[in-house]
Amino acid sequence: MLNNLEKFKCMKRDTAEINLDPLQRGGILTPEARAALIEWGDGYSICDFCAGVLDRIKNPPVEEFVHSVLPKFLGADAVRVMHGAREGKFAAMHALCEKGDWVVIDGNAHYTTVLAAERAGLKIEYVPSSGAPDYAIPAEGYSEAIERAYEHKGNVSMAVLTYPDGNYGNLADVKAVADVCHDFGVPLLLNGAYSVGRMPVNARDLGVDMIVASGHKSMAASGPVGLLGASEEYARTIFRLSATKKNKEVEMLGCTVRGAPLLTLMASFPAVVERISHWPEEVNKARWFAAEMEKLGLIQQGERPHNHDLIFFLAENLYEISQTAKKGRYFLYRDLSERGICGIKPGLTRQFKLSTFGLSRDQLGRVLNAFDEIIRSYAKA
Amino acid sequence: MLNNLEKFKCMKRDTAEINLDPLQRGGILTPEARAALIEWGDGYSICDFCAGVLDRIKNPPVEEFVHSVLPKFLGADAVRVMHGAREGKFAAMHALCEKGDWVVIDGNAHYTTVLAAERAGLKIEYVPSSGAPDYAIPAEGYSEAIERAYEHKGNVSMAVLTYPDGNYGNLADVKAVADVCHDFGVPLLLNGAYSVGRMPVNARDLGVDMIVASGHKSMAASGPVGLLGASEEYARTIFRLSATKKNKEVEMLGCTVRGAPLLTLMASFPAVVERISHWPEEVNKARWFAAEMEKLGLIQQGERPHNHDLIFFLAENLYEISQTAKKGRYFLYRDLSERGICGIKPGLTRQFKLSTFGLSRDQLGRVLNAFDEIIRSYAKA
Repeated sequence: MLNNLEKFKCMKRDTAEINLDPLQRGGILTPEARAALIEWGDGYSICDFCAGVLDRIKNPPVEEFVHSVLPKFLGADAVRVMHGAREGKFAAMHALCEKGDWVVIDGNAHYTTVLAAERAGLKIEYVPSSGAPDYAIPAEGYSEAIERAYEHKGNVSMAVLTYPDGNYGNLADVKAVADVCHDFGVPLLLNGAYSVGRMPVNARDLGVDMIVASGHKSMAASGPVGLLGASEEYARTIFRLSATKKNKEVEMLGCTVRGAPLLTLMASFPAVVERISHWPEEVNKARWFAAEMEKLGLIQQGERPHNHDLIFFLAENLYEISQTAKKGRYFLYRDLSERGICGIKPGLTRQFKLSTFGLSRDQLGRVLNAFDEIIRSYAKA
Repeated sequence: MLNNLEKFKCMKRDTAEINLDPLQRGGILTPEARAALIEWGDGYSICDFCAGVLDRIKNPPVEEFVHSVLPKFLGADAVRVMHGAREGKFAAMHALCEKGDWVVIDGNAHYTTVLAAERAGLKIEYVPSSGAPDYAIPAEGYSEAIERAYEHKGNVSMAVLTYPDGNYGNLADVKAVADVCHDFGVPLLLNGAYSVGRMPVNARDLGVDMIVASGHKSMAASGPVGLLGASEEYARTIFRLSATKKNKEVEMLGCTVRGAPLLTLMASFPAVVERISHWPEEVNKARWFAAEMEKLGLIQQGERPHNHDLIFFLAENLYEISQTAKKGRYFLYRDLSERGICGIKPGLTRQFKLSTFGLSRDQLGRVLNAFDEIIRSYAKA
């Protein structure tokens, strides 16, 4: 009945030398994480010396990592390791909001914020962005959205800000958003999937009540793994203990990431802390790259000057080429592939996003040359 | 501020040659899974060629695995990859039950079944086991428990059976339990964390409506990863699509295991299918081992003859030794460690569980010799 299973035995990852996909840039493993993956690969290996609570395991030093290192790193009173940012958002919403409540979400939010709210039975009021070309999220938009929800007689029990968003790489004014939300008594959750592990982010300094991070997106960890941090006030409810099962946290279903992904997060952590100190150079590189792309006729969207490695481009010139190119709208994907570059979704030409994170100026130069060559080659023809 | 991070860079798994922990036996990676871990270790590697739905990825062949191979394997109309069995149980309860509903659970259930119900806001009515020495779960116990819940004016929206349970390795009469539940119109979820991947289990043949499995516990996969299968009737609700985000399943938060654990599950799968065909020999080995342990003065609890590799022992003789041994109740753990054996929790002597799964008769002979030697050494002294 079960035939042809051979194909599952040896699956190769066929990817190009330079991968520009924003999803991929921050999750490339360090050598230490790669070693941890091998050492701790077996099923439930981390549980060898567990006395019943994953985040209290002393060997490997999970307890120190979760209860001492991460709270300092995130600026949160309590932190737990989650399966990812989305699972962190759902856990916070499920614990803190009642079905039928309203949650206020920035218009640039990742789709998983919407799904987390939908799964928790919440209604959504959006804070619209300013639209093209900046797509900025204004702090006052939060007060307007909260007031709109109130007009529906809604109870607004949480607000979420995506920092940066995953389309334009915009870093909104978190402190101002937090102030607005707090004026209404609404706690603010910061989605740091594209920031924590790339740039300095401190929940306490930014004034946010909760924060989620992504290990596979931005902390050089093997997915799925992420973080949920909260201030004492909200941590009490989110990380509440079971009424009947001693020491087990209900919202975490006891233990969350009981395997190798957690070990890769820990093993990469020293290198992640180090790389965050080079963030200004990452921003400079992104700005330089965006400026060079504009010289080739593309137009950068989102904040200018840009403050993040995730960059969105409009490319009317590439779209025009796609109208007559032999391979149609797939020409860009294929022409970049031939030059050892991937990460822009197949079929996209008129607008796309990419990330410069962790790529050297030499590598980015190769990308710029590739775009230049491709554009010139069709101009000739 | 963040100091002494060096310890996270090189964490070694210090474990003995023979690990008897039931948690560990079924999760040891195959060479193919180990290779997959390296190949697909980076963060979000599986998403390179994703068009928006994880389980529709064609390269690697996730779509075929999830939508064709796994439904056949589990005997379920629809299957999704989950973070583990517990996350599968919660997703099913959260999707199908209303807050305040009742769920009927076997008295031998894993603590995560209780947590999943608690997280979903459900009340629990237990089906008590028969107690020592068999700890059997009788099918009629389900009708009694459902009727007790009705006496509380409760709506019973799900029943769960643990197959086998994680303490005694008992395999209850699933078909009889399913018949009882269905007489009341209550769907039955089978927790196969310790069966799927070790022995033949087919949800349809057993008459259950939903099934969860654990990749790290029993399918030679790197955790956390598991499965949730459901019949068409319940799959429609559990795997419902978002009202606003195209093609995204709400209860899955879009995509679940977006990383290497899924690839290890796939890579090990051919070997897992193969090993299931050797299940009768695993049972014979477990029975032989239990009989030999009884010759040393221990007493096997749970079903007799035993039908699973997970075995619970009472050991009054070891407990007596612990009363006077120099190392107190830790003597057994240390004496076994010295002989290259681990997996019985430190400090336990009077009762403990272990698993014989995947160990050769030679290896199990070494374990028996170790127990024999240890018992004799204290008798002399």
